Amino acid sequence: MQVTEQVLSRIVPTPEEEAELREVEKELVSRIDAEATRHDRRLYARLLGSASRGTWLRHQKDLDVFLFFPEEYSKQEMERIVTLIAERVLRKVEKRYAEHPYVRGVFRGFEVELVPCYAISDPGYIKSAVDRTPFHNDYVKKRISGRENEVRLLKQFLKGISCYGAEARVEGFSGYLCELLIIKFGSFIHVLEAARRWQRGEVLSLRGEVDRKKLRRKFSSPLIFIDPVDENRNVAAALSVQKFSEFVHAAKEFLSRPRLEFFFPRERRTSAEEVGELLSRRGTALVALSFPTPPVVEDILYPQLRKARRFFEALLREGEFNPVGSTFHAGNRSFLFFELSSSEIPAVRLHLGPMVNSAHESRFLKKYADSPNVLSRPFIRNGRWAVYLRRRHTRAEELLGEFIAGGRLKERGVPSHIAGALETGGEVLSGTACLVEEALQTLADYLNPRFPWER
Amino acid sequence: MQVTEQVLSRIVPTPEEEAELREVEKELVSRIDAEATRHDRRLYARLLGSASRGTWLRHQKDLDVFLFFPEEYSKQEMERIVTLIAERVLRKVEKRYAEHPYVRGVFRGFEVELVPCYAISDPGYIKSAVDRTPFHNDYVKKRISGRENEVRLLKQFLKGISCYGAEARVEGFSGYLCELLIIKFGSFIHVLEAARRWQRGEVLSLRGEVDRKKLRRKFSSPLIFIDPVDENRNVAAALSVQKFSEFVHAAKEFLSRPRLEFFFPRERRTSAEEVGELLSRRGTALVALSFPTPPVVEDILYPQLRKARRFFEALLREGEFNPVGSTFHAGNRSFLFFELSSSEIPAVRLHLGPMVNSAHESRFLKKYADSPNVLSRPFIRNGRWAVYLRRRHTRAEELLGEFIAGGRLKERGVPSHIAGALETGGEVLSGTACLVEEALQTLADYLNPRFPWER
Repeated sequence: MQVTEQVLSRIVPTPEEEAELREVEKELVSRIDAEATRHDRRLYARLLGSASRGTWLRHQKDLDVFLFFPEEYSKQEMERIVTLIAERVLRKVEKRYAEHPYVRGVFRGFEVELVPCYAISDPGYIKSAVDRTPFHNDYVKKRISGRENEVRLLKQFLKGISCYGAEARVEGFSGYLCELLIIKFGSFIHVLEAARRWQRGEVLSLRGEVDRKKLRRKFSSPLIFIDPVDENRNVAAALSVQKFSEFVHAAKEFLSRPRLEFFFPRERRTSAEEVGELLSRRGTALVALSFPTPPVVEDILYPQLRKARRFFEALLREGEFNPVGSTFHAGNRSFLFFELSSSEIPAVRLHLGPMVNSAHESRFLKKYADSPNVLSRPFIRNGRWAVYLRRRHTRAEELLGEFIAGGRLKERGVPSHIAGALETGGEVLSGTACLVEEALQTLADYLNPRFPWER
Repeated sequence: MQVTEQVLSRIVPTPEEEAELREVEKELVSRIDAEATRHDRRLYARLLGSASRGTWLRHQKDLDVFLFFPEEYSKQEMERIVTLIAERVLRKVEKRYAEHPYVRGVFRGFEVELVPCYAISDPGYIKSAVDRTPFHNDYVKKRISGRENEVRLLKQFLKGISCYGAEARVEGFSGYLCELLIIKFGSFIHVLEAARRWQRGEVLSLRGEVDRKKLRRKFSSPLIFIDPVDENRNVAAALSVQKFSEFVHAAKEFLSRPRLEFFFPRERRTSAEEVGELLSRRGTALVALSFPTPPVVEDILYPQLRKARRFFEALLREGEFNPVGSTFHAGNRSFLFFELSSSEIPAVRLHLGPMVNSAHESRFLKKYADSPNVLSRPFIRNGRWAVYLRRRHTRAEELLGEFIAGGRLKERGVPSHIAGALETGGEVLSGTACLVEEALQTLADYLNPRFPWER
């Protein structure tokens, strides 16, 4: 049996599962419709997303229901009505905010997203990204019939190599992008065969000829796939260079030696001992910032974690610590990890001043004549004044600790939610204290990276 | 009593000393003349230099005698005759080679240099730098009368601040340059008053108007003083930016608070304890190369030491050790010292490779698939291949030791005489082993620089 057949046997829903989904869907949509018409007869609900297009994966019990409003409704009003309906129909209701508010809840064991949108006739005149979804649904449904399992293979492959999902946590391929790739190339294997030749700045379209150069100037992502329902939109806009490259490499590897591990990778098991051993072989030092994970959606959290990581890496570099690299983990608590050449640097630093006999000379000489942080008197080096100064911080932990104790972190450039979390519950860890249980796998992946199919 | 008067009372020769010098000079020149005419009646000797011009310092018992040859003589022939004469007239004769061969020896307690030169009538047509000296002598003697003590003050001031001498060891002001400065500005104090306003690229001349811009393009030294006997020559060509700047600063300091220490600085006393304490306050690590001082003249030795210091500093930097600075000492043995942030660096280094899916990809992946010096498998970082490698050297001593053990140092870029000395008797020192007695003051001057008048 071919690898892809083995995979399909595990990811295509059984007829019973499909029947259950259709039944639940029907009941859910009719209950929402019934509630909605009590508010306004013009409102109506529709199931969209992969369950509607027949491209969902087995065990994936998600239903995306869109509630359509006339354009005169305000966002606030839509949000209010959607919330009221959800509270009547669903259990465990939570409000969510992305670009647009929506509601999550549970219905007969299925995860439901109830999303308000405008009933619009032309996708060129949408008010918000969610208004485009019905058009995506129609476009795909018309063209995907008979190739649903090819979409499923591609999705499972991307899941297996950790590249599935356009959300900020992953920065990978969305479900809609998978469907368009199958429509474009015809099959899972044909997508991989195309991908093995992709270069950064690849341009794809379902509309015939495009101006590649112009599109590359307009969209900066490594892959550009023009949305067939809106030519001003790049469906792959959220794809990072990292995930693009990983996918291209995985495609090549899979084609040269197809195996099940690409779809169902082994879990990586690690231990504090293994991570400690990796570190000691490298001869580096680990420091970390730890803080309660801010209670915000992942699409806000992850970009802030990445930005905070860059911010503190720059802070350490400015303090003349030499960061080898960094990584982060978000779980019960969040962690920013920094690997340093050494957690301790010398007290002395050479400070170069103005030219001898220049205008700024006397100010320099006065300033450093008997400053408490000088390690020498001013001296001349190659025509310039110089002085040996005592560094404020010789240990990375001190530098980070004092920075955080200084407060006003947001004003000093730390992303807002991370700033708040550090101020209320921030901690600086160093050495073995960094080897916290929940972040061990993140650390192992950073210190000894493995492709998922090679674990 | 003024500072300068106190100084003069210590540096102007007494009438008895002057009488002794004149008597010795007379006898020496007539003895050399007598020997010379035995070879060729056209040869004659003359005393040149500061003893001849009346600008020598007390206790400085040097006599420079030039032996004049007709232009048909070859260098070899001149060298042979000068050597024969010296062996008859002087004791402790040694041959020396600079640009031109000459002989040193001792006569009645005076250090004598016997230099062969051509008797030339126009300084524009000289054959070698020494042929210019008679013209310098004539120029100065005609103009310096009555200002000899001003020259002496300037020379002693420059000695006191370690800026006297155009030789490679010092890279400072020659005696002739001192005399020209006094002729130009009239007195010691006037020289300092001019110097306090000097900037790098200062142009001086005794011939009226000069084209400063053109001269700055022609001569790159920080001070340009056009030789009055040869306008194509810069008398200050050997002056380093370091010594130029030190002199300018000393001039300003002396004018604002004149004191004897500028002329007669205290000796700096130091100990291994003090140097060790300086080092530990800085938190840095010291490594050194030690080798027998090559038996070559200082004008060859010092440029090679400076070049070797730069060479090994670059080697350490390439090995990713982080040199804070360096210094050297030449005594019984020679030492190149390097101050490092840390003598040990991590084993790991990130090695970035080609872009994913580029032409060089497969070679990179093959090379690092199971190389013994990898610390990880190849992985993708931001669209490029990367791998963690094990550094060849994590200790600076190992890096230096292995480099020297590799031999063929001259071919690998080490200056020739240093290369030879390292190969026959090189040693790598680290930590407290670097605190060798004879180099302690050099180390103290490097770690805690002091101007000579502030010791």
